[in-house]
Amino acid sequence: MADRLPVIVFDVNETLSDMTPMARRFADVGAPEHLAPLWFTSVLRDGFGLTAAGAQQPFAAIAAGVLRTLFSGLDLTRDTDAAIEHVMEGFGGLGTHPDVPDGVWALHDAGFRLVTLSNGAARVAEGLLTRAGIRDRFERLLSVEDAGAWKPARAAYAHAAEACGVDLADTLLVAVHPWDLDGAARAGMATAYIDRTGAPYPDHLTAPTHTVTALPGLAQRLS
Amino acid sequence: MADRLPVIVFDVNETLSDMTPMARRFADVGAPEHLAPLWFTSVLRDGFGLTAAGAQQPFAAIAAGVLRTLFSGLDLTRDTDAAIEHVMEGFGGLGTHPDVPDGVWALHDAGFRLVTLSNGAARVAEGLLTRAGIRDRFERLLSVEDAGAWKPARAAYAHAAEACGVDLADTLLVAVHPWDLDGAARAGMATAYIDRTGAPYPDHLTAPTHTVTALPGLAQRLS
Repeated sequence: MADRLPVIVFDVNETLSDMTPMARRFADVGAPEHLAPLWFTSVLRDGFGLTAAGAQQPFAAIAAGVLRTLFSGLDLTRDTDAAIEHVMEGFGGLGTHPDVPDGVWALHDAGFRLVTLSNGAARVAEGLLTRAGIRDRFERLLSVEDAGAWKPARAAYAHAAEACGVDLADTLLVAVHPWDLDGAARAGMATAYIDRTGAPYPDHLTAPTHTVTALPGLAQRLS
Repeated sequence: MADRLPVIVFDVNETLSDMTPMARRFADVGAPEHLAPLWFTSVLRDGFGLTAAGAQQPFAAIAAGVLRTLFSGLDLTRDTDAAIEHVMEGFGGLGTHPDVPDGVWALHDAGFRLVTLSNGAARVAEGLLTRAGIRDRFERLLSVEDAGAWKPARAAYAHAAEACGVDLADTLLVAVHPWDLDGAARAGMATAYIDRTGAPYPDHLTAPTHTVTALPGLAQRLS
């Protein structure tokens, strides 16, 4: 990797997209906003559990299924199916974090090949990056749906490297999620942690190769 | 399995133990009580993520590490290390759900061999069942720490079957967690869901063999 630029593989949900508006969707249907992070974490729990058990389900199916469980027993402002639909629709209108366009432009201008690899559907990334005006900076938008396993299983990262025609050692994962960086590191990738919140990086997961507080800092770190 | 009684393998946290007092531990240190379910779900997310990536860390290490992240930026009533210690100590004093002793007695009296299999440490189950006066009804208290992988990976369930000297097809997992029942079913076990809350069982995970609203109902279902 010392002799050539790594292919930069971006996580999508929360790393590129700002998911804070999802909490408002919970409030809209009469559910507490603090259920939004519990929901997202529960989706990952079930997705990773299935992966650990050798199985796989689409992100959207798990996301809707977890909502049905979380909404059980709540006094919602609309029926459960409509409430689930309202929250799920929120995914289709998210924006990127303010630092993302500048960071993507800087990395693209520096000559890096850029792709995304999401546990969600590729069309969600397609919409997000198109709305932000940066879709054309990305060579490919990949989903674990074509990998046979969710991140952080090695097969998910290997799928991205293979799709780009490079070895895992010639790739670098960018994410805000320590579990993702840990899996990527175990698969042999370099890693970059975007630390937008200042929360301590957990000791129980592999430390990242690089840490920056916003995406534009990464181009500087890598050049 | 039709010709002989299955060995009954119990999940521990939330299935046997009532974890609702953990929320009070969060309030004690100045953190919102609604962080308690987010904390437990995040511990499972990281534990399953490591499992999917082919790695493993002790439950207590992940639980403390996730607390450090969740407590970041909060105005706690004591320093972070003391707050983490206070929450973690809560595990050592939990009681069982009210239906557990009667259910365990009924299953034991019906001739079933009973064991536990936890993603946590065996000593947590030891303390819980001793305080409830039902420790002697259990043949073994097992932890995934000796299996090389957390539930819901197949290796965790296989460890329990092997420790009991039976095939997976001659075991039955009892849990309140659909992800656990899903993994057990995929490993070849029969499963029983203790549905104490009435929340719908998620479509994205394998449906249980049996569903009861409290543990004493299981002995009736199986006899």
